[in-house]
Amino acid sequence: MKKIILTGDRPTGPLHLGHYIGSLRNRVALQNEYQQFVMIADVQALTDNAENPEKIRQNILEVALDYLAVGIDPKISTFFIQSMLPEIAELTMFYLNLVTIARLERNPTVKDEIKNKDFARNIPAGFLMYPVSQAADITIFNANLVPVGHDQLPMIEQTVEIVRKFNLLYGEIFIEPQALVPKEGGRLPGVDGKAKMSKSLGNAIYLGDAADVVTKKIMNMFTDPNHLRISDPGTVEGNVVFTYLDIFDPNKEELEELKAHYRRGGLGDVTIKRRLNDLLQAVLQPIRTQREMYANDKEAVLAILEDGTKAAREVAVATMRKVKKVMRIDYFASL
Amino acid sequence: MKKIILTGDRPTGPLHLGHYIGSLRNRVALQNEYQQFVMIADVQALTDNAENPEKIRQNILEVALDYLAVGIDPKISTFFIQSMLPEIAELTMFYLNLVTIARLERNPTVKDEIKNKDFARNIPAGFLMYPVSQAADITIFNANLVPVGHDQLPMIEQTVEIVRKFNLLYGEIFIEPQALVPKEGGRLPGVDGKAKMSKSLGNAIYLGDAADVVTKKIMNMFTDPNHLRISDPGTVEGNVVFTYLDIFDPNKEELEELKAHYRRGGLGDVTIKRRLNDLLQAVLQPIRTQREMYANDKEAVLAILEDGTKAAREVAVATMRKVKKVMRIDYFASL
Repeated sequence: MKKIILTGDRPTGPLHLGHYIGSLRNRVALQNEYQQFVMIADVQALTDNAENPEKIRQNILEVALDYLAVGIDPKISTFFIQSMLPEIAELTMFYLNLVTIARLERNPTVKDEIKNKDFARNIPAGFLMYPVSQAADITIFNANLVPVGHDQLPMIEQTVEIVRKFNLLYGEIFIEPQALVPKEGGRLPGVDGKAKMSKSLGNAIYLGDAADVVTKKIMNMFTDPNHLRISDPGTVEGNVVFTYLDIFDPNKEELEELKAHYRRGGLGDVTIKRRLNDLLQAVLQPIRTQREMYANDKEAVLAILEDGTKAAREVAVATMRKVKKVMRIDYFASL
Repeated sequence: MKKIILTGDRPTGPLHLGHYIGSLRNRVALQNEYQQFVMIADVQALTDNAENPEKIRQNILEVALDYLAVGIDPKISTFFIQSMLPEIAELTMFYLNLVTIARLERNPTVKDEIKNKDFARNIPAGFLMYPVSQAADITIFNANLVPVGHDQLPMIEQTVEIVRKFNLLYGEIFIEPQALVPKEGGRLPGVDGKAKMSKSLGNAIYLGDAADVVTKKIMNMFTDPNHLRISDPGTVEGNVVFTYLDIFDPNKEELEELKAHYRRGGLGDVTIKRRLNDLLQAVLQPIRTQREMYANDKEAVLAILEDGTKAAREVAVATMRKVKKVMRIDYFASL
């Protein structure tokens, strides 16, 4: 039997090149070897977007289009919408009894996000709980592997703790999931040079961006602010164009020559940006074409989501049947 | 249309005379005038009994027997098991986004219970959240009234706050529930004189107790520790037998005479205990008979629970359909 992967995204906006490099391309690479559940995490998105549910709704379709565009194949991967699996909410409620508030408050990822979002003591309870909800997401499919970035490792640790406690208290029905952390090159900086490409920072190249929009973003990319004239020596480190070329340029030899040239002066930003533009357009063009094709057939996308959600729900229902059995709350059959 | 009441109990043990005086007899009185949902709150019981699910399971039936024994009529009241309505868990998850951790920590009832249970900082997250889960219990039936003791008023306040926030954010679908606080005589002390009759204090007279067990408990009741000889003057205040007589003795005139006699001396504890015994046996005997009858037909009790749970679930499903519609997460019908 294939090992199971749970992965997914919060539908808070269309996906971008950072998602592609960080996770989407891995999903395409992994989908044959593993049984992959791809969750559109609308319930989780609501934990810090309760005031704006319409945004979440709109982006469910956008995210699904992005998945299909990059080549995640709904025939072998299972796409589903989190809110349509009430079993996840049920399991979350039981897990909440196995975790203390003190433990949740120690979670480094949550701590960081509370700081970033400036919640202070006014954290929505749902937000503090979301690692528990994630544990339910993962275990309801008995996922073996969860692809995450380094910053998300505490989430997997929390899940493993819950699994151990559950198995100990009620019976061994869950496996301990493992984090699948990508190798080098997993994180793409924003076009402005900030460490992370992000919708909220406004520094993203979207998978659905038109070709001329992509070109414009590349042409405005952050390079070396001291590289004023072509003849000036330039810096490669922290120069976003080179960071991107390191990821997207298959010709490493030529790239090293370009870097040397840039360092000693005489190589203009426009030249390297054009090179990057050619490479990125080659990556993005087929994605964009595929995306447009599906965007013109929304019924088909909805059918994919609906079928996937049904299939995922069957698994969730079967898991909850086991959960309730070992928890001794499977009434009526044998009370 | 009849107004709706939500009420219920945690199935952590069989119910006792304290429950009868504090709530069960009211349910019988109210069931014709109101549409009454009576919840066996197993999910809530698990929030501080996660280690002992078998106890919860066993007591589901005990509590149902107690309901039937006192005369809550399943033909007009709807009995249901909380864990069989996953919609409550779903709604709880959405409500958790509308409440801050700081607000939950300020809840006086929860604060008291945390202190009583000596949780300190190791509160299970589920326990801190349970007022939110209660808000879901209440509102999923759009209950107008919730019978509670004074100590539970903060719970209803929390529900009202959530309802207001939900209605404001997503649309006016919930009504603000009101607390239905019993008049005088709502609380029965334990047979040992402690303020509250409680299973955990071991000072309870159970509705299922055999007649001789009841007599024994009454004969050992706390009276006036300084009333050593019959001829001694005795104290009525804090004397459990008189507290009970105040509730159960319909002949108030005779009771006042007895109190006066006890105060001036010459009235023995055994005499007043016998009087109380006669009165309590008269209350408990028909309850016990009815309880035994149902205990001998567990299939019938299970059928009542199953039918009630089905009926309650229909209401819950309809409410969640509305919730998801106004929250804009009603996909597939109209995405």
